[in-house]
Formats: sequence, structure tokens, C-alpha cells
Amino acid sequence: MTARIVDVETIDVRFPTSRQLDGSDAMNEAPDYSAAYVVLKTDAADVPDGHGFTFTIGRGNDLAVHAARAIGERAVGRTVEEITGDLGGFSRHLLGDSQLRWLGPDKGAVHLGTAAVLNAAWDLAAKQAGKPVWKLLADMTPQQIVDLVDWRYLKDALTPEDALAMLAEKAAGRAEREAYVREHGYPAYTTSAGWLGYDDAKLARLCQEAVDAGWDSVKLKVGADLQDDIRRCRIARDIIGPDRRLMIDANQTLGVDEAVAWAKALAEFDIWWFEEPTSPDDVLGHAAIARRIGPTRVATGEHAHNAVMFKQFLQADAIGICQIDACRLGGVNEAVAALLLAAAHGVPVCPHAGGVGLCELVQHLSIFDYIAVSGSMENRVIEYVDHLHEHFHDPVRVRGSRYLVPEAPGYSARIRRATLDAHRFPDGPVWSGGDRVAS
Amino acid sequence: MTARIVDVETIDVRFPTSRQLDGSDAMNEAPDYSAAYVVLKTDAADVPDGHGFTFTIGRGNDLAVHAARAIGERAVGRTVEEITGDLGGFSRHLLGDSQLRWLGPDKGAVHLGTAAVLNAAWDLAAKQAGKPVWKLLADMTPQQIVDLVDWRYLKDALTPEDALAMLAEKAAGRAEREAYVREHGYPAYTTSAGWLGYDDAKLARLCQEAVDAGWDSVKLKVGADLQDDIRRCRIARDIIGPDRRLMIDANQTLGVDEAVAWAKALAEFDIWWFEEPTSPDDVLGHAAIARRIGPTRVATGEHAHNAVMFKQFLQADAIGICQIDACRLGGVNEAVAALLLAAAHGVPVCPHAGGVGLCELVQHLSIFDYIAVSGSMENRVIEYVDHLHEHFHDPVRVRGSRYLVPEAPGYSARIRRATLDAHRFPDGPVWSGGDRVAS
Repeated sequence: MTARIVDVETIDVRFPTSRQLDGSDAMNEAPDYSAAYVVLKTDAADVPDGHGFTFTIGRGNDLAVHAARAIGERAVGRTVEEITGDLGGFSRHLLGDSQLRWLGPDKGAVHLGTAAVLNAAWDLAAKQAGKPVWKLLADMTPQQIVDLVDWRYLKDALTPEDALAMLAEKAAGRAEREAYVREHGYPAYTTSAGWLGYDDAKLARLCQEAVDAGWDSVKLKVGADLQDDIRRCRIARDIIGPDRRLMIDANQTLGVDEAVAWAKALAEFDIWWFEEPTSPDDVLGHAAIARRIGPTRVATGEHAHNAVMFKQFLQADAIGICQIDACRLGGVNEAVAALLLAAAHGVPVCPHAGGVGLCELVQHLSIFDYIAVSGSMENRVIEYVDHLHEHFHDPVRVRGSRYLVPEAPGYSARIRRATLDAHRFPDGPVWSGGDRVAS
Repeated sequence: MTARIVDVETIDVRFPTSRQLDGSDAMNEAPDYSAAYVVLKTDAADVPDGHGFTFTIGRGNDLAVHAARAIGERAVGRTVEEITGDLGGFSRHLLGDSQLRWLGPDKGAVHLGTAAVLNAAWDLAAKQAGKPVWKLLADMTPQQIVDLVDWRYLKDALTPEDALAMLAEKAAGRAEREAYVREHGYPAYTTSAGWLGYDDAKLARLCQEAVDAGWDSVKLKVGADLQDDIRRCRIARDIIGPDRRLMIDANQTLGVDEAVAWAKALAEFDIWWFEEPTSPDDVLGHAAIARRIGPTRVATGEHAHNAVMFKQFLQADAIGICQIDACRLGGVNEAVAALLLAAAHGVPVCPHAGGVGLCELVQHLSIFDYIAVSGSMENRVIEYVDHLHEHFHDPVRVRGSRYLVPEAPGYSARIRRATLDAHRFPDGPVWSGGDRVAS
């Protein structure tokens, strides 16, 4: 019997995080962290389903769900073998509906929905292989990795042949690096201390708790008021001391010249990177900022919607830190494209995480990057936010500022059914008033 | 009594254009031209509503409708005066929902929905003023025009002060130019001859008909097969002769180096512009192509999703023709931003049209550009496709390759109710089988 995809389940899951201003920043004053959740269902007894999602911050999650359903229906009827045996081809199939493509292309709600479906397909493929996604990737040959990527728009920056040579050069050291990361984990940093909605006392307390918990790198949200930010950076730097890294994140609120002025005013606090200083679409703007604020690095990518954007940020020397997002890029395949481009340009990838389950996903991508692509952990840290992990079957494990390697087969994407039921919008008890206790 | 917006009606309208391959190109093999249609309803007796829409090509139009409803609800309860008296502020209000913004920002389904709502608000404002939209705009002071624009991300390319000075310099000649365009109309070109799905005989016949009808400029779709394109360009150039302009459009199908090779292979046919050679997100790619294919100009913009993209295309000298789209940009306000940026960089704006009602909308923008912004018609042509105009209350009027100036108050956006009823998806008779005659 050939197993097939027989159904796609989509669920609008929302967490009422705005009730406590967790996750607040200068652009997003009151987010309700949400997932457009997808289950690809098969008729196989051994691997019955794959789970995936994309992340949004509340209103509009229904649009992402709706998009995921439209894209997911393109999987129904396909054999599991067709999908897991050629994930590059499946990715191109999902992205190739010319009518749906018009709403992007390769951006916005449709691309978010595509990410959810493709993430579920990778979860399915990894479960079928009995491996976590990072291991499924790290066991692929260089040619198999290259074949995951749609090269149509990327060849002027990196040819498939050059990518193949780069991967082949790293192949010999894979086993050694896998052993190393299994033993030592992967470096992380924390954003939990620095949300903009917190007052100074809470900021100071959380910075101290971060130091006490062993964190070496701390990120603050900035961008609403410069005088406030000077005061908050001073508080943070005083507490974390001169040797830990301090990063700032303006969440796109500034124009190019304003961002430069902001960075210069905060330079005395020794800022490692300045994240999302301006519009995420502004490659040339980021390049102009980068030229003017060194040695602080420009970081962006959580809102860079596709590999063409990362290609340009790298070509223009616009970023010193490349922040891929596992749910905004069109799933694992496009994330792999970004990893290859970044490695070819010598720029470290420090994935965006937090939200709902982003930590769970991006750890797979960074571990794969270390083992098979860049081969380095230097200047690389995965974002960590201590929110909502308890809702996952296979939550991230962080010890002493490092992610431990996930071992369970799949993409660590599966949310507990009780959570899905309780947080389903708008009819789950968390939202309908049946249970007003915030999660 | 203060009039208010009391309701927003949204309608999913689709035309089964794929049944005849009208509108086929190398990327979009079978589009069903569609509109996510919005009616902002007021409680005022004199101006009961404003009509607007965004354009898609079929599947996914429901997503644009859904987004337009989510955005449109932000208008309900506002006074008409608040909206029409400060269209810049209203635009920022629509774009400013931080949760919905996450799905873009400023791109994809949510931005398309915003365009539909804002276009309806402009229709309402123009009807209230008793003027067509072009005249409402052309009667504004330079300061009022500058205030329509969100300058947050644009000031590094053009400051509001410089935009004001540019507009002030053109103010003296407005009356003369208005009289000229009323008398002579605005230049246009035709795409109707060159859809990729047509065979050579139909292409030749339609090119001859275009010449006979007085067109000076003809555009062909290319990008699927180079040998086919060489043959088709030869057919077209032979029929239109050496003095008419020939343009080509690859609809994003090529990589950067491929696009250059394509342009060089077709150079013998004296191509005025090469449209959408590659990914619409690839500013640096378009710049590289532009440097290598002169004197053919690079044209793009129908998929450029916001003013930040146009800013960069202009800063990078990536385009010689700026093709704004009235429904992909976030409504009239963002189109005005693009017009100002293009004029400041000396690049002619030749709007994308065709689809459903795009000709009806963009004529207003180009006429305003001529009267008050660029002050020139040189190297400027509005796309014209002879499709679906019969469904509009105030359809474009084209005579001898020129658009005649629209005179009715509003944005020419209103579709006939009988059309809305017949083409409503999926339950209108055109789609439900009650009327299988293609429109």
C-alpha cells in the first residue's frame, strides 16, 4: 500500500500574551502570540501525520490559517514518498500555484501559509526517517542539500556548483562537529529581560536574573524614545558588566538617518548588534546604516520574506548578522538557501526565535548549519525567550546559555492537543470566556 | 448630523478569463481576473458610499477579500469628515494595526486589502468633492500633497521639504497642463496583442489590428522559450515597422544572467523596455541587468509592494521605467509617494494596468502626475488592455492611442451591480453553473 496525504487540518491557535505585555516592542505594542497550525494527515499506520505552523501576533492569524489551507490542499492526494523523497520538488509545487502566487509573490499571508505546510512536511519526513530534522539534513549528501533549493533567482550570488563545492569541503568534518554539538550544545542569548513594556525596576531585575542564570548575551527592545533607551541601556550595561554582549532591537521603527543617530547615541554602551533598525524591505537603507555605525553590526531578517531578500542583504554588505526566521521564509528549503548564501558571504546566522515555537524550530537549522554548512559557532547565537515551551511535546532544553540538541524524530513542532483545544480562536475556552486564566 | 462609515461590504468577484487564455504569460498560465471589492457605506444621503477594490488572478481572491474586511472594519464608526479631511492620517490608521502588520509588513494579502479599502475612501472623498480623483489631487496645495505620504522610511531618498519645493515649482503650470490633457488626453500602449497563450497567426493579426487602430507602442509577453520569443518579436517588429515602440515583459521568470542573455538576443528588434525580467524583490538584480542591457530600459513595479521598494529601485538606478500599480501599493497615498520619488529621480512613471479595472484607476494617477508632479508626458504611456471595461459605471475611454480624461466624480472604481451579482465567487451564476457563458 502506498501511503498518501489524505487530509490537511488547520487550527487557529492564539495565546493571550497581550494581557501581560510579554513580547511588547516599539512596533508591536500588544501582541497575542499565535500559530497557524497545520497537520498533514496520512493513511499510514506508522507515521500518521506531520505537524507544522507559522507564527503571527494575533489578528490576521485567521488569514494565515486560510492561506495554509489553500496551500495545504495542494498536498492532499500526493504520496508520502513523492513528498519526503523530493522535498525540493514539493517546495516548488507548493510555491508554484500561479494564482495564489499573485498575492505575494513569495511574501505575505500566502508565504506564511506555505511555511506552515512545508514545516509539517519536514516533520513528517523526519519522523519517517526516525531522525530529528537537523539530523535528517546533516545526513544528506551535498548534492541532496543543493537540490532542496530553488536556484532560479539566486545564481548571480551563488551558483549551485559553488554551493556544492562549499558543502563538499565541509563534509569531512561533519562527524566531529556533530559529536561536539551533542556534547556542548549550541550558544544562545536571551530577549526575556528587555521587552519595551517593562518598567526600569523589572528590566533591572530581569537583567540580574539573566546574569545569575549564566547568560552571556542580552538583548533590549529600543526605538520608541531615545532618552528612555539611553537610560535602559545604561541600566542593562551596568548590571551585565563589560564582558557580556548587549544587543538592541528597534523593530523597524526608524528611518535610515534616525537609526544612525540612535546607534551613535547608544554606542557608549558597546552594542554588539543593532537589529531591525528600519524597514525590513530596505536593503540599501540597511547598507547605508551598516557603513555608518561600525563596529556595531546591523542585524535583520525576521521579516525578510524570502531568499532573494537575504541574497541582497548579503550582496550589499548590509548585514553583519543574518537572522533567518523558520516561519516567515517558505519553510526549511528556503531557510537552507539562506544558510548557504550566508555561509558563502561569511556572515553568521543568528536565527530569530521566541514567539510560538520558533525556538523549537530554529535550533534544528542552526545545528545543521554548524555541522554541514558554515562549520562554525563563532559569533553565532540562537535567540531564546522563555515563553510557551510547555505547550510543546518536544520543548527546547536550554542549560547555561546553550541549547541542548533535540533528539526526538521530527521538527519539534507538535503542540499538545489540550493546548490546541484550549487556545483555539475564537471558540476555545481561553478566548470564549470559558477559561479566563491567561496561559 | 455628522456622517459616519456605518458598514463595509466586501465581495469576491471573479471573471473566468482562463477559459480563453486572455492574460496568459510565462508565469501566469491561466489567470481568472478577479477583484476583492469593497464598498464603504455611510449614513449620508448625498454620498452614500465609496467603491474600491484590489486585483488578483483567481484563487486567493478570498484571502484578499478577507484581508479587506479586517482592514475595512478599522474604518467603521469613523466620521466621513475624519477620513476625507485627512486621507494621509486615515492611510496611516489603516496600516497601523500592529497585529495585522505582522503578516506583511506592507505587503501580501493584508496590503492588497488595505489598497482596496483606501481606494474606496478616495472614491468617497472625490465624490464628496464632486470631482474625479485626479482633479481632487491636482487641486491640492503642495503641502496637502506632501501630507498624504508616510515619510518614515523615505527621507533618505527624498525629504518632505524637497518634495514640497518640487511641487511648488510645478504649481504655476498646473492650469495650462490641465487644459492640455483635457484636450489631448494621455498616451497609452496596448498589451492586448501579445499574450503568450496566443499562436503566431493570432499574434500577427492582433499586431496588425493594433497598427490599424493607431497604436504607437505594443508589448509582448516573453520569457518561456527564447527561440519562440525571437520568432514572435520578429513577427511583431515586421508588422509594426521600425518607428513604433516594441516592449517585452518576462513576468519574473528569469534569473539575472538569463535576463541579460534574453535582452541581448532580442536587441536586434529594438526593444524599448524589458519588463519584470526577474524577481520583483531583486533591486540589486534589476540594477545589474540595467547596467548590461542599455539602451533597452528595465521596467518593473507591478509587483513592487510598497514605496520602500520604489525608493530603492530609483536609488540604485535599477529602473528606467517605473510601473506603479494602483492596487498593489497601499492605495492612492502610497502611489503618490512613488510618483514623488520617481519625479525626483527623473524616471518616467508608466503604470501597470489591465486586469480588472486597473486602467480605470491608474489614469487618475498619471493625469495627476502630469499636471502637478512630473509635469511631463515624455516617455510616459499608460498600459491599456481591452478587457472587462463594460462592467464599470465609468469605463475608460481610449481614442487613437490616448486615454481621454475621466470626468465623473470618484475613482472610476464602481462595478455594475449586475456584474457583482453574476460574478460573485463561488455562488454567482457564472461560477455556480447557472450561467456558463463566459463573460
